[in-house]
Amino acid sequence: MEIITSIKQLQHKSISWIRQGKSIGFVPTMGYLHEGHEALMKKARQENDIVILSIFVNPLQFGENEDLDSYPRDEEHDRKVAEENEVDVIFFPSVDSMYPKRLSLELSVVRRADVLCGKSRPGHFDGVVTVLAKLFNIIHPTRVYFGMKDAQQIAVVDALIEDFNYPIDLVAVPTVREEDGLAKSSRNVNLFDQERVGAPSIHQALQYGRQLVENGEKSKSELIKKVRQFLENKSHGNIDYIELLAYPKLELIEFIDQQVILAVAVYYQKARLIDNVVFNEKGDKTLG
Amino acid sequence: MEIITSIKQLQHKSISWIRQGKSIGFVPTMGYLHEGHEALMKKARQENDIVILSIFVNPLQFGENEDLDSYPRDEEHDRKVAEENEVDVIFFPSVDSMYPKRLSLELSVVRRADVLCGKSRPGHFDGVVTVLAKLFNIIHPTRVYFGMKDAQQIAVVDALIEDFNYPIDLVAVPTVREEDGLAKSSRNVNLFDQERVGAPSIHQALQYGRQLVENGEKSKSELIKKVRQFLENKSHGNIDYIELLAYPKLELIEFIDQQVILAVAVYYQKARLIDNVVFNEKGDKTLG
Repeated sequence: MEIITSIKQLQHKSISWIRQGKSIGFVPTMGYLHEGHEALMKKARQENDIVILSIFVNPLQFGENEDLDSYPRDEEHDRKVAEENEVDVIFFPSVDSMYPKRLSLELSVVRRADVLCGKSRPGHFDGVVTVLAKLFNIIHPTRVYFGMKDAQQIAVVDALIEDFNYPIDLVAVPTVREEDGLAKSSRNVNLFDQERVGAPSIHQALQYGRQLVENGEKSKSELIKKVRQFLENKSHGNIDYIELLAYPKLELIEFIDQQVILAVAVYYQKARLIDNVVFNEKGDKTLG
Repeated sequence: MEIITSIKQLQHKSISWIRQGKSIGFVPTMGYLHEGHEALMKKARQENDIVILSIFVNPLQFGENEDLDSYPRDEEHDRKVAEENEVDVIFFPSVDSMYPKRLSLELSVVRRADVLCGKSRPGHFDGVVTVLAKLFNIIHPTRVYFGMKDAQQIAVVDALIEDFNYPIDLVAVPTVREEDGLAKSSRNVNLFDQERVGAPSIHQALQYGRQLVENGEKSKSELIKKVRQFLENKSHGNIDYIELLAYPKLELIEFIDQQVILAVAVYYQKARLIDNVVFNEKGDKTLG
């Protein structure tokens, strides 16, 4: 396994792999790798000749009052995890090399971004697509891997690839969970003990919502009201949003007559957790 | 020579050329090819294994009151010119295939775009960089060729390539002119006879401005005043702008103490013509 920090060096390497006819699987991360990331690496390893993992805590996708400085980092651990998962290259660029000066161009997400996490994190997805467009042009991946936990991110990356004709396959990998159902996240370490006890209720609330539909609930507002009651009783956090939208278009609906995403975000004292489930109009889980 | 209209088909072809280790020279145009374009094709032919010419009148870079509908087209002629210049592929996509639905993302130019043509054509360069980002992802060029007549376009494409890490060399080719100095342009055919007689004064005015600096003029405002008088007397058109800026950063300056661009745009009844010259603080022409 090689650790590359230079953009030019990786760019040359990627082009030479492409010239050799090799497929490149790309797993973009912000580091502090957990089993969720491992699932992405394993899938990429199965499907590609070369696997590139990027570790870059992208300042552009953090808001002013967000957790850029407290975002957890552990290079030694990340290197070990990547090596165990047979990653070929860790791309570990500096902020200065990725953003050497103020950008003259701005890439922004004008659809699919004003709901869910985009609502409370203005500019977040602009930062995500900007860094991904850069990484795509550096790495030229055949396939790119994202976890379904960030379902909105997947919808937005899907738009980036489609709108700008990137010849890249987007692979959505199911969310990896703790034994008690809590979705794996780098931010889980920031939970206080009591918060950690309540956090699995996020997943439970989503399952409860899905079951309501399975049992015949068709009204979005009724569903959300019940899921909110469930979460308020159990989560030990402050609900940021509970939303139900058509998926993957992320459009508003009133009645559940198509594939939808039920998504939740909860604020804890030092962390904000998200989770979701995607199901059809019968309540059959389809993704998440 | 092959004419390709399908995005997917060209994308596959380009990737297979890259796999064969071939360099790709890309000449993006809106068609109605003239000697200016031929200079680009010839240069691309010299420097690359494969030459791809795109012909696409990009609606995104035209304003509401601009000449999208009257923009001249002549496919038969273009095909002949491309063939004579040993182009390998003409990429000739439809508007529907390039923009199958409303974009979810927007790419905009926030620096270098609020001067010169950007000032009177809001959104123009956003449209230019959007279609170029798409074309870059379809064609994966080694080198891309632009004429210096659109000096601001070159500055903006330079920013696109740098900000988004495209591994592409930007090649600026000197402006090709008629015998009387008028810069070649697809829009020249829209000039009325009397306008055509006055149009070479645009180039003369730029030369006059450069000579003023050669003769010791250092003040931007003095220079522009004199060039304006010259043009008002001779051009038979309405001056859109006469501007002098640092080049290539396109920043405002008061005194001529570095490389600058002197640029002019003139409105005629059915055309708007642009031209420029780039020179240093001594008045020595360096580009254009």
